[in-house]
Amino acid sequence: MQGIDRNTLTDAVIASFEGAGDPRMKEVIGALVRHLHAFAREVELRPEEWRAGIAFLTAAAAITDDKRNEFVLASDILGLTSLTDLLQGVPGATERSVLGPFHAEGSPMLPVGGDLIRDNAGPPVLVRGRVLDLEGRPVRGATIDFWQTNALGHYWQQDPTQSPDNLRFRMPLGDDGVYAFTTVRPAPYTVPYDGPVGGLLRAGGRHAWRPAHFHFRVLADGFAPLTTELFPADDPYIEQDAVFGVRASLAVPFVTRDAPEEAARHRLPNPFALVEFDFRMSPAR
Amino acid sequence: MQGIDRNTLTDAVIASFEGAGDPRMKEVIGALVRHLHAFAREVELRPEEWRAGIAFLTAAAAITDDKRNEFVLASDILGLTSLTDLLQGVPGATERSVLGPFHAEGSPMLPVGGDLIRDNAGPPVLVRGRVLDLEGRPVRGATIDFWQTNALGHYWQQDPTQSPDNLRFRMPLGDDGVYAFTTVRPAPYTVPYDGPVGGLLRAGGRHAWRPAHFHFRVLADGFAPLTTELFPADDPYIEQDAVFGVRASLAVPFVTRDAPEEAARHRLPNPFALVEFDFRMSPAR
Repeated sequence: MQGIDRNTLTDAVIASFEGAGDPRMKEVIGALVRHLHAFAREVELRPEEWRAGIAFLTAAAAITDDKRNEFVLASDILGLTSLTDLLQGVPGATERSVLGPFHAEGSPMLPVGGDLIRDNAGPPVLVRGRVLDLEGRPVRGATIDFWQTNALGHYWQQDPTQSPDNLRFRMPLGDDGVYAFTTVRPAPYTVPYDGPVGGLLRAGGRHAWRPAHFHFRVLADGFAPLTTELFPADDPYIEQDAVFGVRASLAVPFVTRDAPEEAARHRLPNPFALVEFDFRMSPAR
Repeated sequence: MQGIDRNTLTDAVIASFEGAGDPRMKEVIGALVRHLHAFAREVELRPEEWRAGIAFLTAAAAITDDKRNEFVLASDILGLTSLTDLLQGVPGATERSVLGPFHAEGSPMLPVGGDLIRDNAGPPVLVRGRVLDLEGRPVRGATIDFWQTNALGHYWQQDPTQSPDNLRFRMPLGDDGVYAFTTVRPAPYTVPYDGPVGGLLRAGGRHAWRPAHFHFRVLADGFAPLTTELFPADDPYIEQDAVFGVRASLAVPFVTRDAPEEAARHRLPNPFALVEFDFRMSPAR
């Protein structure tokens, strides 16, 4: 009989998926098995380490529900989420960054130039720019889906003192691709660290902080959906995002702008911070 | 600022664990990140595939509890459990194989030569052999921990018609290292396939069957614990164990033995099946 030994095992596992109906599934699972086994061989994985891995997954399972997913968080802090985003990158297009767990469909509509500040405390910011194609022409009929924390680093879903739908919107753009809105500067915050991922961060000598950021998801017919983030370039955690979402091209200056008429037009105090950013969308695949 | 791109991400994630207190933890997690990222790069992992992976883990979480662990099962059917066992292998020692989820501490004691058949239906078997060291000398003071399914392929924990502790024992051996017991031939069975692991097996064109087997865990002071299995060499699934536990050296003949006196001594019908196997233990590390 054939028998399995440490030299033949990996090929036997890959061959067991020979009958997969979907060739891509066979390719992906085969590569997963090969790399997983290569990892175990390289470190000569010990039984107690295998058990620690199972205990990690089991502990993650115990706190995962429809409101919180510890597996997504594990993927985030190991850079796998960010890598998946980067692998979607198209030269010349805006770089992608993590969607994160706080995106939700159904944000209220906001017209171009609208205001999100309302009763939110914190430094006021005017954010504006355009949505362009790879040739620099305005994208017609784009929609921006936007969400951020307040100035204390909390999303509305986390914070009963915020009104529902606070600091998020959908904005349909005109043929010029121009967007603009006023808001408050978001704040750095920690990813949840009370579960096994937190234990891993601590064991690794790591912290759980993310730099402050705006979340954007830009959608337009004929273009690949663009999920990304913008970060204040002077954020204290800009060089050490716990989930590796920062890219140099997405770190933007919050420029102090002393312009009384512009401030008045946007009903902002003067001076205020200005963030300008143009999105570049790649064609749908 | 430094910034993350698809070329620098992996090194940045590995470097983030630079402050780990435990050098071995740093080594293992660094290798895990490197191989996980290499997998994603090689297949150019797509966002919908990343989501499918998260959905798999989330579904596994939903059915994992203190009685059933879908992550262990996933490790089993991807060969990672078996690889971890094989990596513990020592030349000249009995090959290791999976512990499986049905081992439990506290089996009842059985003397050498004792009987497990009792009210169990199925073909009777005499199992016997010795526990030896790498030089072939008897190991003194060894204990055998043993468990198996009945002739329908069910462990007592799965089957309310079986008496508690059915078909399992602990056997303290004498200075000659000899063990012997009578039992019934176990049967092939399927690993659980009603969860996401079952979905993966089906998508891969795989079945969920394991060949019949005896589980052994052999313990002795000064020796590395030996967890292994013995399989009937003529089992229909011997070449395609769903969890890759079969090794050629562990596939043993169930020899039909026509020996009326021996049968009478063990209170077996004549003829009966005989399995002979000597375990070779390696020194504790």
